[in-house]
Amino acid sequence: MTEKKTTNIILFSGDYDKAMAAYIIANGAAAYDHEVTIFHTFWGLNALRKDGDYNVKKGFIEKMFAKMMPKGADKMGLSKMNFAGFGPKMIKEVIKKHNAMTLPQLIEMAQVQDVKLVACTMTMDHLGLKQEELLDGIELAGVAAYLADAENGNVNLFI
Amino acid sequence: MTEKKTTNIILFSGDYDKAMAAYIIANGAAAYDHEVTIFHTFWGLNALRKDGDYNVKKGFIEKMFAKMMPKGADKMGLSKMNFAGFGPKMIKEVIKKHNAMTLPQLIEMAQVQDVKLVACTMTMDHLGLKQEELLDGIELAGVAAYLADAENGNVNLFI
Amino acid sequence: MTEKKTTNIILFSGDYDKAMAAYIIANGAAAYDHEVTIFHTFWGLNALRKDGDYNVKKGFIEKMFAKMMPKGADKMGLSKMNFAGFGPKMIKEVIKKHNAMTLPQLIEMAQVQDVKLVACTMTMDHLGLKQEELLDGIELAGVAAYLADAENGNVNLFI
Repeated sequence: MTEKKTTNIILFSGDYDKAMAAYIIANGAAAYDHEVTIFHTFWGLNALRKDGDYNVKKGFIEKMFAKMMPKGADKMGLSKMNFAGFGPKMIKEVIKKHNAMTLPQLIEMAQVQDVKLVACTMTMDHLGLKQEELLDGIELAGVAAYLADAENGNVNLFI
Repeated sequence: MTEKKTTNIILFSGDYDKAMAAYIIANGAAAYDHEVTIFHTFWGLNALRKDGDYNVKKGFIEKMFAKMMPKGADKMGLSKMNFAGFGPKMIKEVIKKHNAMTLPQLIEMAQVQDVKLVACTMTMDHLGLKQEELLDGIELAGVAAYLADAENGNVNLFI
Repeated sequence: MTEKKTTNIILFSGDYDKAMAAYIIANGAAAYDHEVTIFHTFWGLNALRKDGDYNVKKGFIEKMFAKMMPKGADKMGLSKMNFAGFGPKMIKEVIKKHNAMTLPQLIEMAQVQDVKLVACTMTMDHLGLKQEELLDGIELAGVAAYLADAENGNVNLFI
């Protein structure tokens, strides 16, 4: 019996295009029969936020962060040529035209393919995010768990 | 017989400085006798564009992208301190002063050293880029090809 | 006797938040008994600058760079939501509230844990930085030294 290869991606970025790249690689690796983990930290956590308001108690700064950060994958901006939101519209137009997958669809596909989606506990704590504000099926873990996966990983990327 | 070590770089960024870093590592690794691949995806593809106009049929959005994205390595901006194009001038001045290599020269050197330069087919397709708009000697491939290289790679980086 | 696992991080970015991520991973890996190296190149070198003025002879462009680039970890901006310096204040407020470590403290902890902090000689040379402008205990090395570490590395990241 040979062990499965593994792909471990740290998604630090909160950009729509970078998150797309992370999820395209993750879905590709899962189709390629890798065990795949995406560890969402810092701004990357925004990809996992659900839309809507949650009755979660937050302090002043936590409220500011909650307000200023995009609520979920569909609201994220681009790393380049964002043009106050016009860039993402163009990208989404292109995706539609080519019958390709949007970021929310890529995330859903990753969940169907059993890609392990992890939210960084330290970031959750610092930004005052609660599990009920995230998509269903997200695991919570810290840097030690990431390292335990990555130290035996085949493809380790920081995005 | 021992197998060659391999370095696999995903160049996602369209920034002059990040592309320089990618190509400096790639050229170093090639000199170090690694098999080296740079997989250019998203904005990283701009580093491989040729200057000039090509008689390629494009739709409206594809024309917009073609117009707004830098045509080739020499036209790319910086990730930091771009200052509307003044930053790149400073960097190029520094490079000249130190007799170091510009990005186009680093790309040429990589080709001489047999670094495999790959353009992501999905990005080509989405942005409406055709092979004749790219430098000579570029391979086209998708994420599966990248993973096949990277899963046995020694140094895997996302830039 | 088993060999130690190794983590090799290239810190290219000059952003406070990205440098924090690099140092959190590095400190985690060191606690996890990895041999850890952070190779600071391009803007990442700013994290190692000391505050204050040094009597170092610089040319015109070198002076411009020295002036425009942040002098040390505490002066760096954010990759997202920098808001002309307001973002970093919010982050530092959050760090304080949670009794977490600031970037300068994370760097100090890394040094205590024997994380090898390397400054890229080429960048030093190009930007006209001298060793006396950096924190104590920084090694100088080039891309070949990085590759010698990374080609046998377990966790290789470009940040």
